[in-house]
Amino acid sequence: MVKEIKELTPKSVSSSRWYNDLVIKADLAENSAVRGCMVIKPYGYAIWEKIQRQLDEMFKETGHVNAYFPLFIPKSFLNREASHIEGFAKECAIVTHYRLKNDPIGKGIIVDSEAKLEEELIIRPTSESIIWNTYKKWIHSYRDLPILINQWANVVRWEMRTRLFLRTAEFLWQEGHTAHTSKEEAIEETLKILDIYANFVEQYMAIPVTKGVKTPCERFAGATDTYCIETLMQDGKALQAGTSHFLGQNFAKAFDVQFLNKKGKREYVWATSWGVSTRLMGALIMMHSDDNGLVLPPKLAPCQIVIIPVSKDRTSLEDINEKATNIINDFKNLDINVKYDNTDNKKPGWKFAEYELKGIPIRLTLGTRDLENGTIEVSRRDTLTKETISINNITDYANNLLNDIQQNIYQKALDYRSANTVYVDNYDEFKERIEEGGFIMAHWDGTAKTEEQIKKETKATIRCIPLNGDITPGIDMLTGMPSKQRVIFARAY
Amino acid sequence: MVKEIKELTPKSVSSSRWYNDLVIKADLAENSAVRGCMVIKPYGYAIWEKIQRQLDEMFKETGHVNAYFPLFIPKSFLNREASHIEGFAKECAIVTHYRLKNDPIGKGIIVDSEAKLEEELIIRPTSESIIWNTYKKWIHSYRDLPILINQWANVVRWEMRTRLFLRTAEFLWQEGHTAHTSKEEAIEETLKILDIYANFVEQYMAIPVTKGVKTPCERFAGATDTYCIETLMQDGKALQAGTSHFLGQNFAKAFDVQFLNKKGKREYVWATSWGVSTRLMGALIMMHSDDNGLVLPPKLAPCQIVIIPVSKDRTSLEDINEKATNIINDFKNLDINVKYDNTDNKKPGWKFAEYELKGIPIRLTLGTRDLENGTIEVSRRDTLTKETISINNITDYANNLLNDIQQNIYQKALDYRSANTVYVDNYDEFKERIEEGGFIMAHWDGTAKTEEQIKKETKATIRCIPLNGDITPGIDMLTGMPSKQRVIFARAY
Repeated sequence: MVKEIKELTPKSVSSSRWYNDLVIKADLAENSAVRGCMVIKPYGYAIWEKIQRQLDEMFKETGHVNAYFPLFIPKSFLNREASHIEGFAKECAIVTHYRLKNDPIGKGIIVDSEAKLEEELIIRPTSESIIWNTYKKWIHSYRDLPILINQWANVVRWEMRTRLFLRTAEFLWQEGHTAHTSKEEAIEETLKILDIYANFVEQYMAIPVTKGVKTPCERFAGATDTYCIETLMQDGKALQAGTSHFLGQNFAKAFDVQFLNKKGKREYVWATSWGVSTRLMGALIMMHSDDNGLVLPPKLAPCQIVIIPVSKDRTSLEDINEKATNIINDFKNLDINVKYDNTDNKKPGWKFAEYELKGIPIRLTLGTRDLENGTIEVSRRDTLTKETISINNITDYANNLLNDIQQNIYQKALDYRSANTVYVDNYDEFKERIEEGGFIMAHWDGTAKTEEQIKKETKATIRCIPLNGDITPGIDMLTGMPSKQRVIFARAY
Repeated sequence: MVKEIKELTPKSVSSSRWYNDLVIKADLAENSAVRGCMVIKPYGYAIWEKIQRQLDEMFKETGHVNAYFPLFIPKSFLNREASHIEGFAKECAIVTHYRLKNDPIGKGIIVDSEAKLEEELIIRPTSESIIWNTYKKWIHSYRDLPILINQWANVVRWEMRTRLFLRTAEFLWQEGHTAHTSKEEAIEETLKILDIYANFVEQYMAIPVTKGVKTPCERFAGATDTYCIETLMQDGKALQAGTSHFLGQNFAKAFDVQFLNKKGKREYVWATSWGVSTRLMGALIMMHSDDNGLVLPPKLAPCQIVIIPVSKDRTSLEDINEKATNIINDFKNLDINVKYDNTDNKKPGWKFAEYELKGIPIRLTLGTRDLENGTIEVSRRDTLTKETISINNITDYANNLLNDIQQNIYQKALDYRSANTVYVDNYDEFKERIEEGGFIMAHWDGTAKTEEQIKKETKATIRCIPLNGDITPGIDMLTGMPSKQRVIFARAY
């Protein structure tokens, strides 16, 4: 019964069913009654809150402040920046009316056709347009700059094929929108944020990233340059984990936002925007987990250690409870989130499976015999290994182990990526290799035409042109034309 | 110039213009390009974040967890609970389409009529319906209960007359939605939350509240009982600061949510819902502030102390900077948010006015002469008084002063409410007194008819039937019919 309910489709059978099972059975999220929209359940949301807190702290440490802009964008605003509307028009939720009424000829409720908006409102798919319309009022002189604002919000893109966390019609995210006096400063900001994203994803989510710049085809609609961090999932598919856009003066021009520079001359303002979303949850879940369930990096686990008593009888349980209380206090003093599960309506075996499914990094088992021997059993979620140690050392031991687990799963992900990154110089080989997944480092002639052809023929896209990578020139594998450096190709989420 | 920009319409001239000026000039919020929707500016949002953090902590301490449900509610869901749809149908934003396209006969962009939703989606005005539709899947047995979930989200109610923070089409809030096995437990939860709200508003916002229950006319659409906390603003108008609803089995019945009780019998689930919103910001701003600007309670002030150097020359400024650095570190060790403003492009007088406008609780001025004398000038924002003290005691002194200010503004608000609460037994007197504002404690016969007539004739509503108040029976001032206890009448925001 337990097995049946909690068991996941093995990854080897179907990584897509495995992922879906995992999200549902680990109580992270589920589909809602509204097409493409998810319910983020408390356990999933607790992880998202940890992600939010940490990123928010990093943004604030670098001088950013939060604010909140409207959910609605007047239709005409989207239209102001040509490529922006092009990118978002086909997938947006449109508010046309503001009142319901009783159907005079039925017994249902209908839209009141008299309550039609003069101008339709779009639910924000991203907020550049409404924000730059606002910045116009805020920016007059160089003294008003820079503006370094972030917003935590929900956005809607009417995606047709959705997957929990990875692609949903409504999702949660943060979107930064900054305004600067110079191109250099705006680019510096774009890259500063890219570094924050990269550090966060590597150090907290334990996922190695490649920083790069997108090709024009893959650029954000309205950006001059889109920088990104790309990750490689366990199934060999790439996942874009965050983007930071240098917007040039595009939105300043679209919304006529100028400032008086120090020389008293009017100039258009330079801009950036950047965001990460609940999609990160998808990456986090997919990257480290296994057929037993979720594996969470200790730094983002809402519960880091679970202690489970295994007692022969009532008296023994009381002794264990007492011992556990001391350990729990020690952990709490170290700011470790610990849970003691001495509920008696579930067997230890059920609990073991449950906490494995939930990805608690460390499980401590305290049995009657342990009390006699002064020991405790320590199980690691990442390696599924167990050992019995002296109970006197448990606090330090477990604290160090949390760090080890954080390092270990990062290293594992890094090794996986190394093992699945190949250099390919021949298009036939490319077409074969792409079937196996992974990052393919190949030369590209820099044209949209070649990029499109490869995409059409292989479903692989250029994930990014890596920054700080190998810049040896070469020959495009398809056209034989010169290439400045290898780029990363992959099939992607 | 400074005066002109920063000066507020005096409260005595127009409290409504004063409020609006204050919100705008203190950089808290402004109207957006979308009718009825506001932009919450960084300073306003920083205060909201402090409110959120504290409430969130209080919810979590009492066993609640956060989750996230969809922004959209299928039209038919709203219709399931009869009084619920009645309450919200007239003011909701309705999504009817999901795609834009280029106008084939023009050069603009239009709604693609082929992309019409089969069922319209309502932007959540509140989430009972989508949440109870979800709970149906989660709740089977008493073991699945209670569910204690809160959500931080944006909601939309298409209000016709809006005011920044107090009444906006889109606003931010938290909404708790809990599910219980028994009526008693649900009522206990409703009142537990009411206490949390009351404690928060009194202890953090420094605003005295009256806890009470709403009359049937003023009840939340779908509730069995609505409990509330009512506050009295400085202009004599009442403001409802939060509500906690006992929903009975109304939503469980509407969405057919039953559980198997311990005896193996199926029962409908008992529910509560409760919320506070960015409206609290309106109360906070209005309650304590004056013609010089905002007055913030220290516990919610993003910046609690500002230090301003007043130096004769460059050398002296360096000495002051050094001294200030030490003080700042001492404050930081006490977790006090302190700002040192030694920018040289603004005169001290400008800074004084600016930080008064922003409501920083304490201003410290450190001048050249202070350095010589070992003193520092301390100015309180709440009383606008100044004194010069020994610089050696400044940390403890200021720390205590923050507590004093918190207490003082609460006491001032409490005194104001006491002075503006009157007992009235005669309807003619009532009609006169209501013009002066304040709470009027009067007897009411308990009928909707009387309540309506009084509202129509005087614009006063029954704010609540106070809990724990005077329960002496009496005679309705209008009808002469028996009354169980006095209720609070007031004109309200």
